[in-house]
Amino acid sequence: MKKILIIATGGTITSIKKNDTLEPNSSNIIVQALETIDDTISYTYKELFTLDSTNIQPEEWKKIANELYINLNNYDGIIVTHGTDTMAYTTSILSFIIQNPPIPIVFTGSQLPIYDPLTDAYSNLRYALAMAKSKIGGIFLAFNRKIILGCRAVKVRTSSFHAFESINLENVASIDARGLVVNKEFANNIKPFNYSDDFETNVFLLKLTPNLDPNFIDVLIAHQIKGLIIEAYGAGGISFIRRDFISHLKKLINLNIPVCVCSQCLYEESNFNIYEVGKKALNIGIIEALDMTTEACLTKLMWALGQTNDLKTIRKIFKTNLVGEIKEHE
Amino acid sequence: MKKILIIATGGTITSIKKNDTLEPNSSNIIVQALETIDDTISYTYKELFTLDSTNIQPEEWKKIANELYINLNNYDGIIVTHGTDTMAYTTSILSFIIQNPPIPIVFTGSQLPIYDPLTDAYSNLRYALAMAKSKIGGIFLAFNRKIILGCRAVKVRTSSFHAFESINLENVASIDARGLVVNKEFANNIKPFNYSDDFETNVFLLKLTPNLDPNFIDVLIAHQIKGLIIEAYGAGGISFIRRDFISHLKKLINLNIPVCVCSQCLYEESNFNIYEVGKKALNIGIIEALDMTTEACLTKLMWALGQTNDLKTIRKIFKTNLVGEIKEHE
Repeated sequence: MKKILIIATGGTITSIKKNDTLEPNSSNIIVQALETIDDTISYTYKELFTLDSTNIQPEEWKKIANELYINLNNYDGIIVTHGTDTMAYTTSILSFIIQNPPIPIVFTGSQLPIYDPLTDAYSNLRYALAMAKSKIGGIFLAFNRKIILGCRAVKVRTSSFHAFESINLENVASIDARGLVVNKEFANNIKPFNYSDDFETNVFLLKLTPNLDPNFIDVLIAHQIKGLIIEAYGAGGISFIRRDFISHLKKLINLNIPVCVCSQCLYEESNFNIYEVGKKALNIGIIEALDMTTEACLTKLMWALGQTNDLKTIRKIFKTNLVGEIKEHE
Repeated sequence: MKKILIIATGGTITSIKKNDTLEPNSSNIIVQALETIDDTISYTYKELFTLDSTNIQPEEWKKIANELYINLNNYDGIIVTHGTDTMAYTTSILSFIIQNPPIPIVFTGSQLPIYDPLTDAYSNLRYALAMAKSKIGGIFLAFNRKIILGCRAVKVRTSSFHAFESINLENVASIDARGLVVNKEFANNIKPFNYSDDFETNVFLLKLTPNLDPNFIDVLIAHQIKGLIIEAYGAGGISFIRRDFISHLKKLINLNIPVCVCSQCLYEESNFNIYEVGKKALNIGIIEALDMTTEACLTKLMWALGQTNDLKTIRKIFKTNLVGEIKEHE
């Protein structure tokens, strides 16, 4: 008999209406639902906490990570129910904390509570369960007939059931008349398992806007940030005329504070070699995010800073494809 | 004979290769290209400046606005060539500065320079020209067989020719075997013309991440920001447990500094009434972005602050659909 662990963390899926708004609610209805879907499985249910995912923060990431770690060898698969709002942040950081786990760890949730007659919770639990039984190790996100690699997931729609997309990478699997159809690429994970839950929280994400004062970088330096992620324009543009970010970022890098640059564009990779405005950034030593999502970029830098303070090593970690978060390159 | 003004500002479209990277380049090849497309038009060419759009900032916005304003009555339409990276920011702010102009003002550019055999510049110029001749007043962005309302445009892809999308609103027009097919909704613009190029540049865009320290809001207060845009989670979630942003944002609002909240999700509107985490934000007086893009949200707040310092009036301006940037609501 297969053993599946369910870890509940709150979210819309088990929320109930109070004073006309939805609030997280404690509930083991998840297991009841799973039993109606497949009663040949032995389910274990653990409610870790009950939070709207807007309130899920680094402290909860650690709790989830530790709970997953101590159970890795006791189950065939683990399902984590989680609010949708920050689910992609959680699956991203956990992808680095628990690299290439031996069993499937599948996050899911819903856009409408499980108590709503129109809920998408039952469907999403079906997909999560199928993936949790698949024996394919990894951190995944199951939503709306898709299984997405955790470090590639982004919530792109506020309300629709197809809320998540896999950015710059194919889905791990899809669900259709053939059942769970796994993309062959993901069927055999040969990357090494690694667990480390050390990470740095004092990393800042700065989305550039044309009016932004570059002196703001000095403010971040004064507040002793340990790393900076910049969402730049297009393929990686950072302004250097009048509002000269390049010279301010140079100060950060000279202080051994890593600066990683990704794109405001949701899709496709950044490339700093095409334009003068990108090349200047590359020349001062920024780290390229290439095809990584903002969520993966932020959490990878946080995790890398938890492993080392050496800028050279961080750069190396960043460039290495640890769990499928970044394209392989020379 | 129709008269079309072309205002060039730089960008990839006229860039040339120097030391293996693309740099903006002065060139009137745009007019030569347009003449090969339609030689029955009288073209006037004006090169305003020659910048990669990564370096286009509020000072350039004003220059473009003023150049457009003084020419509104002298031409049947105006085409502005512009780099793609910040084009959506420029079309957004200009939508508020020049509200509902009597003639079409069409921004365009390209992903590959006009000198490249594979360039998309000629196609995009064709679309821009068709729209510029359409007599439909407004600020538009022409790219890859689509005409997008300027205040709804977002660059969503770094490299592909279909780089821009119209967010939460249909395209103004599309181009296919029927030619320029205008969406009927946009054929008759009855909203009043207004020109005001006053705007506040000291507005900060903060994209929330689960690790962000809310004390950072106090740093922004100390730096006397005049307005704040928050990219919140999902439908509008702002954390209030442990990292309590709600109480810090309350300080800003009590200082009469407007706080406007939009979503990190690219698609669909924010709605603060569904969840407890949104309702709390609404209760302290944040302004909802609803279905507006981040670019429109930022530039609308900048523009509103240029008109008045009164928080109540700013709130009213923000809720009003000025140029199609926000859905009509009660």
